[in-house]
Amino acid sequence: MAHIDLPEGLPGISGPLAQYPETAQHLLGLAQVLLRGPSSLTPQERELIAVHVSNLNECEFCVESHSAAARFMLGPAAQTVDLVRVEGDRAPVSPKLRALLTIAGKVQGGGRSVTEAEVAAARAEGADDQAIHHTVLIAAAFCMYNRYVDGLATWLPPDVDAYREMGESLGTHGYTPTAMANGS
Amino acid sequence: MAHIDLPEGLPGISGPLAQYPETAQHLLGLAQVLLRGPSSLTPQERELIAVHVSNLNECEFCVESHSAAARFMLGPAAQTVDLVRVEGDRAPVSPKLRALLTIAGKVQGGGRSVTEAEVAAARAEGADDQAIHHTVLIAAAFCMYNRYVDGLATWLPPDVDAYREMGESLGTHGYTPTAMANGS
Repeated sequence: MAHIDLPEGLPGISGPLAQYPETAQHLLGLAQVLLRGPSSLTPQERELIAVHVSNLNECEFCVESHSAAARFMLGPAAQTVDLVRVEGDRAPVSPKLRALLTIAGKVQGGGRSVTEAEVAAARAEGADDQAIHHTVLIAAAFCMYNRYVDGLATWLPPDVDAYREMGESLGTHGYTPTAMANGS
Repeated sequence: MAHIDLPEGLPGISGPLAQYPETAQHLLGLAQVLLRGPSSLTPQERELIAVHVSNLNECEFCVESHSAAARFMLGPAAQTVDLVRVEGDRAPVSPKLRALLTIAGKVQGGGRSVTEAEVAAARAEGADDQAIHHTVLIAAAFCMYNRYVDGLATWLPPDVDAYREMGESLGTHGYTPTAMANGS
């Protein structure tokens, strides 16, 4: 049971988003800009960074919902999600994404341990300032979203089908009220 | 030196906020709603929770800037800030705020360790659902802001006077473009 009263039937973050709309507008707005807005990183790359950080934070709801979104958007390359979940920044993805997953993992651990060498390695693989900024802020933001979901002890969907629907909704509508009404 | 190009002369989070306005609008909007918007917690209590979490995350810029904001708003009770920084959730503040600082500390550590007993203890001291929600989200959000500041290796002001000005600006204008133009 969640630590506070939340609307019934809305799993994970969708409960507190519905109950507290004044903070929800900014939490959703940030996710939409960060994960779907203009960027030198693809939406798929950004969802994989979100999955990696949520996995390090052991936030089951966020891992499963963003895995589902990434799988939907990756289509035939959907298995990449499982490789990132198992192998993290050693997964067989592009060298640029591997370098950014390393930075994201450092940010998850606290931020102060990101090194100049790690940033230089990402640049050498083609990451520009915006990619580094987005990676750091996605990692930082999921340290927030993960704690919001788990710190309130929100409810988990009982089966994996629910996540597949959320993933399709997030992949189609992004982080908008429409997607949230579908329980993402 | 910061890991990415940022405008000169803007310390801490104000550099990336100025450089990336599309994310800044939501980062500032969230801080304004959470720390200054309607709540059963006072703005002073909420700034003290922000200071406590930033202190646990060892984010010097955020500790000093939010300490300065809290001191400005607390006036004659400004020394409370130092008590919270040194003693954390054992500081001689109200029993309600102590109980909420305990929850905030658990959220900082990862979120999944907040217990029903800790939430019940806060309720017994007068915390309502909104206070618990705000505490969890403030703690989660500062896990983001702290990592954003440190993960980009932003620049620190050279002396404490700069923080005092920021604190006065944040105490007066809140988390608005006006306050940010003053380097907060």
